[in-house]
Amino acid sequence: ATAELAAVSTEYAQLIGTYFSPHIRAAAFRRLPEECWAPLVLGPVHDYARRWLNGQVKTDIGAYAEVFADAAWNTVRNPDAR
Amino acid sequence: ATAELAAVSTEYAQLIGTYFSPHIRAAAFRRLPEECWAPLVLGPVHDYARRWLNGQVKTDIGAYAEVFADAAWNTVRNPDAR
Repeated sequence: ATAELAAVSTEYAQLIGTYFSPHIRAAAFRRLPEECWAPLVLGPVHDYARRWLNGQVKTDIGAYAEVFADAAWNTVRNPDAR
Repeated sequence: ATAELAAVSTEYAQLIGTYFSPHIRAAAFRRLPEECWAPLVLGPVHDYARRWLNGQVKTDIGAYAEVFADAAWNTVRNPDAR
């Protein structure tokens, strides 16, 4: 199962890379340290999901899809790009 | 220890409340669902810290203090406020 998970993870990373490359070349994104990228984009939704599993928040995360998507976009978008 | 932790947590929440109330009244912040606030602000740094403890990232989080602070501010600030 570990090997399968690693394979899925690698494939996922390649998919993400392929998806984002043209946007990165087009300077759509803010310059951010590579190590901060995943925490900034995924941290909030993972944190929400963890709180939901703990019963600390009640609302289905789907209700906040736009909130989290907008926040992620505000965080990573290049403010000088159109 | 659980009671002590709860007391610290309550005191911390009151401190945060006192600190933020005037800013909230001054409409400095975006309107966000209350349940999303902590995940949006704390999620990224907690995620980074978790990755650091796992050895997935190497840089001391202090080096990224401004990156995470700027991201949090971009996420919560009211874009229409001065």
